[in-house]
Amino acid sequence: MHPFQAYCQDALARMKAEGRYRTFAELVKSRRGFPRYTTPEGREVVVWSSNDYLGLGGSDILARAAQEAIEEHGVGSGGTRNISGNTPFHTALERELAALHQKPAALVFTSGYVANQAALGTILASMDGNWQVFSDEKNHNSMIVGMKGARKAIWRHNDAAHLDALLSAADPAVSKLVAFESVYSMDGDIAPIAEIIAVAKRHGALTYLDEVHAVGMYGPHGAGVAERDGVLDGIDIVQGTLGKAFGCHGGYVAGDAAVIDWLRSAAAGFIFTTSMPPAIAAAALASVRHVRGAHDLRARHAERAARLKSAFREAGVAILPSTSHIVPVPVGEAALCREVSRRLFDAHGIYATPINYPTVPRGTERLRFTPTPLHGDAEMDQAVAAVAQVLRDVRGVAAA
Amino acid sequence: MHPFQAYCQDALARMKAEGRYRTFAELVKSRRGFPRYTTPEGREVVVWSSNDYLGLGGSDILARAAQEAIEEHGVGSGGTRNISGNTPFHTALERELAALHQKPAALVFTSGYVANQAALGTILASMDGNWQVFSDEKNHNSMIVGMKGARKAIWRHNDAAHLDALLSAADPAVSKLVAFESVYSMDGDIAPIAEIIAVAKRHGALTYLDEVHAVGMYGPHGAGVAERDGVLDGIDIVQGTLGKAFGCHGGYVAGDAAVIDWLRSAAAGFIFTTSMPPAIAAAALASVRHVRGAHDLRARHAERAARLKSAFREAGVAILPSTSHIVPVPVGEAALCREVSRRLFDAHGIYATPINYPTVPRGTERLRFTPTPLHGDAEMDQAVAAVAQVLRDVRGVAAA
Repeated sequence: MHPFQAYCQDALARMKAEGRYRTFAELVKSRRGFPRYTTPEGREVVVWSSNDYLGLGGSDILARAAQEAIEEHGVGSGGTRNISGNTPFHTALERELAALHQKPAALVFTSGYVANQAALGTILASMDGNWQVFSDEKNHNSMIVGMKGARKAIWRHNDAAHLDALLSAADPAVSKLVAFESVYSMDGDIAPIAEIIAVAKRHGALTYLDEVHAVGMYGPHGAGVAERDGVLDGIDIVQGTLGKAFGCHGGYVAGDAAVIDWLRSAAAGFIFTTSMPPAIAAAALASVRHVRGAHDLRARHAERAARLKSAFREAGVAILPSTSHIVPVPVGEAALCREVSRRLFDAHGIYATPINYPTVPRGTERLRFTPTPLHGDAEMDQAVAAVAQVLRDVRGVAAA
Repeated sequence: MHPFQAYCQDALARMKAEGRYRTFAELVKSRRGFPRYTTPEGREVVVWSSNDYLGLGGSDILARAAQEAIEEHGVGSGGTRNISGNTPFHTALERELAALHQKPAALVFTSGYVANQAALGTILASMDGNWQVFSDEKNHNSMIVGMKGARKAIWRHNDAAHLDALLSAADPAVSKLVAFESVYSMDGDIAPIAEIIAVAKRHGALTYLDEVHAVGMYGPHGAGVAERDGVLDGIDIVQGTLGKAFGCHGGYVAGDAAVIDWLRSAAAGFIFTTSMPPAIAAAALASVRHVRGAHDLRARHAERAARLKSAFREAGVAILPSTSHIVPVPVGEAALCREVSRRLFDAHGIYATPINYPTVPRGTERLRFTPTPLHGDAEMDQAVAAVAQVLRDVRGVAAA
């Protein structure tokens, strides 16, 4: 056996011993029954951990757009954007996303992950690397890998004063990029975007905002928290996803025309990869067009999240102080978190993923609830009662 | 204006001056008319530069599988594989790919690019980075970015003796990975896989083989050149794509069970991204199942490539010495290459992408023809005559 195989076996054994070996639940997502999924054995479960935040993945709007595009154009695009893989759906989608964010241009990537990794990586390698990036300490892995190798300063989470101090201490000759998220998906808190912009601009820094957990859901047209807060202009590059609230797949950046056109020409993670299937671009386009005007859906979504938070509080279940639609229930300790999730699944037909390291720091393991407009009162009350019960049971056992 | 905006504007102006600014042709891929596409204005063109190598992207097999899956399951998966985004299609697809490559396990990524970047990056960061990677000098960008930061030795293209020399000179205490491709997509040549394996194994190195331009097309079951050459066993990790000959989207690696399971648990580019849409996984599964037995399709594909090469040679058009289905016609010089492509498109209704830097080195610009089983004799003869004519015209002009 090669030492690497032994290394892998050891690493897996260690994960198992620590209770953080991941088994992916096999779940059948039904288009019409959302948020009710079925297991391969046919058991129905209510999913509380989907990032299909508005429940649009199953909507007729997306399904018809995708099916019709498949009927006309087939499945695979067959090439990179430059080599026969550029359809009118791709370009129309980019125009629509630019309009959504009130920016001159947008560029679609195969995923939000790739969008962050490729855009940040390519920007920070430009200008002979004469950059310093200022990164919120809780930024997503896709941003962190995009910043790999760059000169970097980490500011305390959502702390604009700390950012200000770091920017003040920086070399005046270096170009500065302030990179952060609007909604942080594991805690559900929201960045003080206006403050951060003010600090960044005072120091001549560009701003890069990841709105993947906000697009579709915040702002009058669903452009995200920057739109809600009326500060779209202060964000130089906004990054988003089509795979969460838009119910589809893929990611993008939007911003200044020259910057986006240059990324199109320079970002290896964009250039050297097959473009998204035309039908996925068609469905995403239909979704964004719909969501921009779906004010009632956004209101219903916000109402559902508020109701779930109240219900947990009334039932005595502690939640993290989320100011978004994400409702994290802290459990702590990987094996316990997994056990709570397992009991909810087995005894109550509730699917809430255990969030363990490396997704969150050790000791802060949690269940993460994401109520959608399609989660009804009865489902909510049943979930809250079940969580309260299971937490009492395991904590009783754990304390004994 | 921020200096970065000025930088982007300058870079774009330079690309334009050098004739390597890329304008993506907008092409409507028709499911039934392949390889005939239409422009948004309704003009028909024959596409010779698709990586939908077998023309399966438009087949009923994929279209029906995808449409039915959309009808039942909607479009977006709504989560990472770990967070409600794991459907029976995903797991069945991984089993099918493992079986195709005669390996214990496989893991699907959102693209072949991500598969290379994430798998290589994660492997080479393991064991405290005590690795040296031996990389063929013509490896694809996705492999190169995956190797970034690792100790690296570059061997001359397809030169097993040079690889042997580099491995002999390496530190015996370091773990070694030999990374290469089977079919090199821009030249169309094929690696001496058996020789490379023999050298690697003599030095205790693991082998990592990118078969993205071979899967579906080579070997008795379309597992690639390693299958054709009877050396599947000698490859430790094989990487492939679902977005080229399989006519779909996404990428994967296959190999040892512990290695794949560890990658599943450790590769950030796998963990932190939304899983592919269930319908894309369903279509890919249908395609792989079909292609494994599609012997006649593979034979027809090989015959078409051989015929195109002969036809170019008979018409006096030089081609690079390809030993695969890829037929590169060297032009040299970016602006000229673009001009040849433009004339073919405008005057002859032929789409052959100009391949310029950074995809190939400067001075080696080319057109790249990829005949599929659906390119008929008449289309082929017309294309060859048109290329010969246009090359004569522009070279006459260029020489004048």
